This record gives sequence, structure tokens and C-alpha cells, in this order.
Amino acid sequence: MPELRKDPTVGRWVIIATERVRRPKDLVVPRAPRRGGPCAFCAGHENETPPEVLAYRDATDDRRDAPGWRVRVVPNKFPALRVEGALEKRGEGLYDAMSGIGAHEIVIESPDHDAALARLPPAAVEEVVRAYRDRIVDLKRDGRLRSAIVFKNHGVQGGADLEHPHSQIIATPIVPLAIADELHQARAYYDYRERCLYCDILYQETLDRVRVVAETPAAVALAPYAPRFPFETWIMPRRHAAAFEQAEDDELAALAMLVRDLLGRLDRVVGNPPYNLIVHTAPFGGEASPSYHWHVEVVPTLTASAGFEWGTGFHINPMPPEESARLLRDANG
Amino acid sequence: MPELRKDPTVGRWVIIATERVRRPKDLVVPRAPRRGGPCAFCAGHENETPPEVLAYRDATDDRRDAPGWRVRVVPNKFPALRVEGALEKRGEGLYDAMSGIGAHEIVIESPDHDAALARLPPAAVEEVVRAYRDRIVDLKRDGRLRSAIVFKNHGVQGGADLEHPHSQIIATPIVPLAIADELHQARAYYDYRERCLYCDILYQETLDRVRVVAETPAAVALAPYAPRFPFETWIMPRRHAAAFEQAEDDELAALAMLVRDLLGRLDRVVGNPPYNLIVHTAPFGGEASPSYHWHVEVVPTLTASAGFEWGTGFHINPMPPEESARLLRDANG
Repeated sequence: MPELRKDPTVGRWVIIATERVRRPKDLVVPRAPRRGGPCAFCAGHENETPPEVLAYRDATDDRRDAPGWRVRVVPNKFPALRVEGALEKRGEGLYDAMSGIGAHEIVIESPDHDAALARLPPAAVEEVVRAYRDRIVDLKRDGRLRSAIVFKNHGVQGGADLEHPHSQIIATPIVPLAIADELHQARAYYDYRERCLYCDILYQETLDRVRVVAETPAAVALAPYAPRFPFETWIMPRRHAAAFEQAEDDELAALAMLVRDLLGRLDRVVGNPPYNLIVHTAPFGGEASPSYHWHVEVVPTLTASAGFEWGTGFHINPMPPEESARLLRDANG
Repeated sequence: MPELRKDPTVGRWVIIATERVRRPKDLVVPRAPRRGGPCAFCAGHENETPPEVLAYRDATDDRRDAPGWRVRVVPNKFPALRVEGALEKRGEGLYDAMSGIGAHEIVIESPDHDAALARLPPAAVEEVVRAYRDRIVDLKRDGRLRSAIVFKNHGVQGGADLEHPHSQIIATPIVPLAIADELHQARAYYDYRERCLYCDILYQETLDRVRVVAETPAAVALAPYAPRFPFETWIMPRRHAAAFEQAEDDELAALAMLVRDLLGRLDRVVGNPPYNLIVHTAPFGGEASPSYHWHVEVVPTLTASAGFEWGTGFHINPMPPEESARLLRDANG
């Protein structure tokens, strides 16, 4: 059973696996995904995964765990957190711990091993982000859970263990530190100005236009003012809403369109970079927040290592966002 | 001139280089240091660096920028921040920026290209950490600066651009986010308990002993209760002091001894891993803080990428700290 532990020096919860690591030297081997299909995520291999919790199929197809799906969500076979058990919180001297309760699911984005989010048809990408929404809505019914992290690692440097295109959803009984920090800052801004910080950012950026990468009537892709990494890009809905699952169909369509468009632009500028895509959304129960605003961050992982940034939260970015936005804007297909 | 910009959504200052990146695809190439010496940091090549700001030599040797030194500190030839110019702060709509004023120095740990901190004699490691202290004391005299980050990247995966053993010091007009978070948490703990959190951690850990790796009368090396990474280890002085430069000679000697000892243990358990070493110290002017306590974090970078952790602050650590402490404790030389 994994355990959640809080680092009292920064207030950060960490998942600690409690099984014994057999050979410490195994930790050193860089993770490289096995090349080539088929794999457990491929159509026809449904029995190699835990039973599906969601699948999109033709309306006439009522099978389960069988081919015919377009997007399929299954529990992770090696989950970081476990669904079973009670949520127990306890102190350990001055420390705080809780049982590693939570959900860890895999969103298989296509039945095709060699597909890629950037090259899927727009409707298929839309179904991927719709699967995010549908799963969050379902996970929220579990009263033990407080937050969902939806993310995608693409490429070995992006942290992808498996080649078959997939995203992950981790639902936790705590709020991740980065989201807690965002909520705190957004609340402080709102308390002072009585406006949503993200709505203000959207207003200023769409006037300035120097950091806008692409836009639709429902959403905007932009380089943030102080990005940590070259080509870091945020996709934000124009309409204020704190939680991702509040997104309406036109907003999901806009998000899918902009994600696909952005990945194409990144491919043309830096050649199919590894990247992380992360959905930033309000904790469960925080949907009515006037100060927080869901968004998606896409961060190419272009440098081999992040070095000291881990320990300091201090980043040196060699590329101004005005420059990355211009390059991406000009990279039309 | 680089620029400091604040991300309003999390309150994080980022250094943004403002020179134009000529070829975006260059950013993709993983940094691999040139193999083999001699290099600009080697004895006899002193004219290939900016003039030294500190060097330890025999008492009878009064040369500058010439061989004979044991530890040498020089300004970085390609600094992330510049010493010249006034500190100007300005708003840009809702955003905050300031000129990229600061110092960026290189601590050359040995005249020998093929040396390594783990294999240097204890007295030599002590001179390296003494150089950290001496430089911070000098940098504090610049009233524009508020904080110093001392760090070491070892190995390509640890982010080292250059093979010759060296550390870096970056002094900034802002407080890095991770340090600000630590200060905030430490203050909250102190407000409630009227005790230093770190002193309490030392008390509990040296009683429990399950996470202690090694210790001396002046300092303790331990696996933190909620580490982000396998084999993450903190070295903490037993005596309360907020700022690193307040360390007395016996504490510097203890730190040097424990760093060297720890790197040896890591080498025996996982084989000379890449790592980051980071000094966590109070901002300039915060030396009298009863709540903050300087310490050094050593984080081996064993996995190829950190994936989604960047975006969420949420970490999954496959190794319990009790296990990593036991392995390191048992790995005597």
C-alpha cells in the first residue's frame, strides 16, 4: 500500500511507494519505452489491461473490453495510488501521513499503437479531452478524493514509459502543491482587485498580442509572461470557470483544436519535441471559485536536465516568450 | 541584458534571457560536456576566465590569476544575471519585472580537471564550502541583492555543462520561490509552536534513527520524511542558525565531511550518480530568524525525466526514505 506523506518544510504531499526496491541500481537505468507494437493498449489486446472504466464506441456497439473503441480508459495496472481501503490520516511525531488512497487511470488515446495526438483527426482529439472530463465527473463522486491531475507525458525525455499514445489521470485525497499555490495567488489577486487573475491575463494578452500563439472564439493559446521553459504554452478558455469539468462542448472542441494545432507548430519549429501536458483545475468542491480559472499547460522538455531548478524553484529560460510565440505563430502548417 | 519576470499565477520569479535565440532547434540538443581536459578551469588556463574574485593559495603566494591555487572563484563568463547596472523595477500591465541584476560565479573546486568532490581530501572539500561562505559574505555587501543560491550540478543528467568539478553561486535581487515557501512554512510552524521546525526535525530524527544516514557532533545527514526522489538526503547543522554564512568552522568541517561521506556512500550504492547539491539559506537580512534553519539538500537525479512533477509539484517516489537511509548507512567505505 503506498503512503502519502507531507514534507513539513514546504507543505508538499508526496506519494511514497512502500514496497521494497529490490536492486537500487535499477533506479539508475533511464526509462526507455519498448519500441514497436502491439502492446497492451492496442486494439485486440483489451484482456491485457484491467477492465475498462470508459470507452467511446459506435452507438450500436455495446461490447466491453473488446475492439471497436476509439478512446478507452482503464485503471493503471501499476497504480501510484490504490482505490481500495479507507482514507486514514495519522501523525508520526511532527509529521503527517495518510493512506495512499486514490485513482490512477490511463486514457488510451487511440487503438493504433503508432498514432500521435498531434496527427489524430480533430474529432479524435476532442474525444480524448472529453474522456478527461467524463472521468473527472465520475471520480468526483468518491467523497475521499479532493483533486484530479490530468497529464500526458510524450517522449522518453517527457517521461513516457510506454510508446502507445496515452494520458493519465491521478485523483488524490490532497491538493497538489502547485495547484494550492495557484489557488492561493489567485485568491490574493481577487481579494485585492475583485477580478479573476486569469481573466485579466486573457484581456491583456489578447490586446497586446505579442505572446498569443493561436486562438479560437472559445479559447486562447499563449506563451506566459514568465515561462520556466522555452516554448512553454498555456491554453486558456475565455469564459471564466474554475474547474475543467465545467467546460462546455465548444470549449472542449476549442481546447482539442488548439492542442492539436500547437503540437503541429512545435513539431515544425523544434521537430516533435518531448513534452508534458497538464490540466490545471480547481479541487473538487471549488467549482464556484470566482478567482481560479482552469487551463492547460504544455511544456516541451527540450533540455536534458533541469539541474538546480528542482531545489530552488528558480528557473533560467534562454528564450523570451515573445520570441517563442512569434516562432510558433509563424509556423503555420 | 537579462530580465527578471514574475509569474503572477504562482508568484515565481524567472530569469528570462532577452537575446534572440538564433536557431530554436539548438535548444533540443541535450547538453553533453566536452570530454577530457585541459579546460578554462584548469591550472595554467587562468587567463581563459574572467579575473578571479577569490582564490585559496599558500600564505607565501600572492599571485592572482596564476597557478598555485587550490580553490578559485571567478565570475561566470556567460552569466544568467549581470552585476552592472541599476536595479530597476517596473510594471507591465498586470505583470512585474525587474532588471536582471545579480552575480553569477563559478567555484572551481580543484585545479585538477579529473578531480571529483567525492574523492578530494577532506581538507579540500572543506575549502570548497568555505569558499561558498566567503563569497556569500562578500556578495551581501551589495545592497541590491537579497538572496544567494549555491548549487552544484554533477554529471550530464545533473545538468552539468562542464566536466571540470565546480559549483555555482547566483545572487539575486529576489527570494527564490522554494526558499520563500520554506520561510513561510517555517514561520507558520514557529508561530504555532514557538520552536524551529528544523530543530524539531533534528530532535525527532536523531531519536528515531531510521532515516539518519551519518552524523558528526556538529551536523546530521538524513533522508527526509517525504523525499521527492530516491536517495534524496539533507545535511543539517545541529546548532540553530538561519543563514549558511553563519556556519562556524567546525560546522563547515562537518558539512564537508558529511558531503564527502554521502557522495562515497551514493557511489557504493548506485555507482557515481549524477546529482544536484543545493544550499538552502535565509535571504540577506534574515540571519536572526528563529524559525528558519540553513541546510544542504543532495538530490541524485536517477530517473531520465521528472515528467509531470514540474507542472503539479506532485511527486511519486518509488523508494521509502527508511530504505534509502538504511542502504546508505550500511554502505561504509
